[in-house]
Amino acid sequence: MKPKQMKESYSVLAQVVLPMQANVAGNVHGGEIMKLMDNAAGVAAQKHARLDCVTARVEELNFKLPIHVGELVTCKSQVIYAGRSSMEVFVTVESEDAINGTKQIALTAFFTMVSVGSDGKPARVPPVAYDENSAYETKLYREGEKRYTARNKRKS
Amino acid sequence: MKPKQMKESYSVLAQVVLPMQANVAGNVHGGEIMKLMDNAAGVAAQKHARLDCVTARVEELNFKLPIHVGELVTCKSQVIYAGRSSMEVFVTVESEDAINGTKQIALTAFFTMVSVGSDGKPARVPPVAYDENSAYETKLYREGEKRYTARNKRKS
Amino acid sequence: MKPKQMKESYSVLAQVVLPMQANVAGNVHGGEIMKLMDNAAGVAAQKHARLDCVTARVEELNFKLPIHVGELVTCKSQVIYAGRSSMEVFVTVESEDAINGTKQIALTAFFTMVSVGSDGKPARVPPVAYDENSAYETKLYREGEKRYTARNKRKS
Amino acid sequence: MKPKQMKESYSVLAQVVLPMQANVAGNVHGGEIMKLMDNAAGVAAQKHARLDCVTARVEELNFKLPIHVGELVTCKSQVIYAGRSSMEVFVTVESEDAINGTKQIALTAFFTMVSVGSDGKPARVPPVAYDENSAYETKLYREGEKRYTARNKRKS
Amino acid sequence: MKPKQMKESYSVLAQVVLPMQANVAGNVHGGEIMKLMDNAAGVAAQKHARLDCVTARVEELNFKLPIHVGELVTCKSQVIYAGRSSMEVFVTVESEDAINGTKQIALTAFFTMVSVGSDGKPARVPPVAYDENSAYETKLYREGEKRYTARNKRKS
Amino acid sequence: MKPKQMKESYSVLAQVVLPMQANVAGNVHGGEIMKLMDNAAGVAAQKHARLDCVTARVEELNFKLPIHVGELVTCKSQVIYAGRSSMEVFVTVESEDAINGTKQIALTAFFTMVSVGSDGKPARVPPVAYDENSAYETKLYREGEKRYTARNKRKS
Repeated sequence: MKPKQMKESYSVLAQVVLPMQANVAGNVHGGEIMKLMDNAAGVAAQKHARLDCVTARVEELNFKLPIHVGELVTCKSQVIYAGRSSMEVFVTVESEDAINGTKQIALTAFFTMVSVGSDGKPARVPPVAYDENSAYETKLYREGEKRYTARNKRKS
Repeated sequence: MKPKQMKESYSVLAQVVLPMQANVAGNVHGGEIMKLMDNAAGVAAQKHARLDCVTARVEELNFKLPIHVGELVTCKSQVIYAGRSSMEVFVTVESEDAINGTKQIALTAFFTMVSVGSDGKPARVPPVAYDENSAYETKLYREGEKRYTARNKRKS
Repeated sequence: MKPKQMKESYSVLAQVVLPMQANVAGNVHGGEIMKLMDNAAGVAAQKHARLDCVTARVEELNFKLPIHVGELVTCKSQVIYAGRSSMEVFVTVESEDAINGTKQIALTAFFTMVSVGSDGKPARVPPVAYDENSAYETKLYREGEKRYTARNKRKS
Repeated sequence: MKPKQMKESYSVLAQVVLPMQANVAGNVHGGEIMKLMDNAAGVAAQKHARLDCVTARVEELNFKLPIHVGELVTCKSQVIYAGRSSMEVFVTVESEDAINGTKQIALTAFFTMVSVGSDGKPARVPPVAYDENSAYETKLYREGEKRYTARNKRKS
Repeated sequence: MKPKQMKESYSVLAQVVLPMQANVAGNVHGGEIMKLMDNAAGVAAQKHARLDCVTARVEELNFKLPIHVGELVTCKSQVIYAGRSSMEVFVTVESEDAINGTKQIALTAFFTMVSVGSDGKPARVPPVAYDENSAYETKLYREGEKRYTARNKRKS
Repeated sequence: MKPKQMKESYSVLAQVVLPMQANVAGNVHGGEIMKLMDNAAGVAAQKHARLDCVTARVEELNFKLPIHVGELVTCKSQVIYAGRSSMEVFVTVESEDAINGTKQIALTAFFTMVSVGSDGKPARVPPVAYDENSAYETKLYREGEKRYTARNKRKS
């Protein structure tokens, strides 16, 4: 299959944190953000595979900063490496206070998504191509590849 | 108050349409999309006013195309004209099928938002400046101004 | 098709505003109320057309008063004019504090709904008949007709 | 305290059953309807007591007919008898297919609500007066009284 | 049909009370808890009948103590008596403050569930067997039987 | 601080998967299950620390089997190792078809939770004690310790 550029799967989901998504302290529930990240990982995987995709694994999901009710949460995702039918997706979450204008990275994580064919079985996906002049894309690709290889070694 | 560029309030909200948001026919409920648009209008107004804002009016909200379960819905908003404490916000909704890649404008609308000071009363907001070399921004500004003026005439 | 009386499509939806529907200030989110109004417009249109209906347009949706958590919100709708397959629906929202008994009109709007036949295409709906002895019904009918005609003129 | 007419607490809540409220068979979950009935009982009790109220007991909640996705559910409630701080509330649920126009009583139940004063303790409520010329109101009052008396006997 | 032990249908549902499930006073809405109880009754009935089940009746649902936001709510259910196609289910709700460790029974109720065959009609269910050495199971069985018999008498 | 037995923080959350939690294929959304797991990790951490806790990190979250609408999902959690103010929580998710009785482990994950004192800062938690005669508890403790140590090494 013809490789697909990393930036082609770049996706953005964004929402305002509602009071119903907060815990008693007024911070958003970890679970609500994980749900948003899972959706964002799914969209990037669908764009890369052009097929339905399911979540297989989440790794290194780190909460760096709390997110407060009323903030704008922007979740960015892109496929950074692909195996035969699985994709490594890098997901970041940025929170923004629209009133005072501050913006911060609140979480990052790596999702492994698997594409599913019309027969319900894992289906082939294109390899990922990246811009070799971009240090950012090169680093992401290398990391995705390392994670993919390490996991396969553990399995065998 | 110093004018603020139109593009400074530009905001994006985006979500995947869930089955729970659909009607029996599998299309998203109009009300669900209106709720998303209202949130997006609120974020743009907050960015412009740097204050809390409430919805005062919705005009010419047009559903051009149905949106289906599983599609990615991206809602873009920006303040296109401002009066003393009210702002005209132009909101568009684009739906995208992440699997086959088609993208279409599904709705547009004009929201009037009012900024609210810490005393709970309408509070002053900066005027809108626009890029006079951009036909798009010029047209939006003129439309917002016309709508604002017409409404004020009806009132008096 | 035989005309149908305006009052035959009269519909009522009502709910208590839950904390999960409020913004940080304790007022109900504009979007939540718009969703309720959209549902109410849909029921009135279904009663008139005896067919499934979708939202095509919202006009002059005005927030007159804020609605608070815990209040009873009653949304009334009725079809006031009908074209070939589209219906003008007038929707009002009344908020009531069940504890102190105050009641106020909080919003009004005009929705245009389109009936959808089993083939998924716009389907014919009966004309609206109104009580000529009722100044209220006569006014609503005339307004709906004017709005319908104005929109058709803009299109052609 | 001055008695209050039974019809003064009469309240109506109504909503369209959404797909998200249904079980796998397309019928509304019993729990969703119980939640609506509880809200309706609360509004009637608030109108009678002019105080916040909490649910103390539900009796004889009978599901007579299934309710389907897309139907209009109208829940009517009124206080039919009052003790010192507790109120017997009769709640009925009617389902209506807005497309074919059929309407049926789907559930009935008796709720006991207790009014809560600003000190968080049960607070006095007015007695219920009823229209002695109405066989319906007389029957409801007698039933509420009987249920209240029976429960008090069991306690002592 | 071969009888089934009471303990075979024993089921547990549990959740943390979210802010969105609370009323203005910070206590969980009665309706939210009734919904959880209805789900728990359904699981116990499914385990006993090995068929889909619907709610037919709720009796003696008593709120003994308020439940607060943030508490852990554990809902236990088991089929205590079975007729031809209906089952008496005893449901208890325990609330626990995970921080200070207190645990209390907050509600109890009896649900009548009916099993539904693939033809959509009531379907036979096994009788309930109980441990005669257990005073608890014996009492529950006798109560379920009494309630079932009383209801059948009222019907005829 | 006096150590606390591993089994003291053992917690169970359980729910029936609703249609509103499913994707188009009828399987539960990964994000919905992650939200449940996050809540369960929070309860176990609260039981261990007797303080409010927030999510800091999720590792090795593996989806082993899809979960279907209508299944009973039981999520078990316990604190397996504790540092100064952070706790390693092992979370498993079991899905059960209440009609045919099959039960399977669908997911596992490790959550790191941090306790938060009344000053909003990380607060001390007791060490974990485990039953040395239990191979299961010993293995979990060793794994938690290894994961905790590895993470601290990466930091420094």
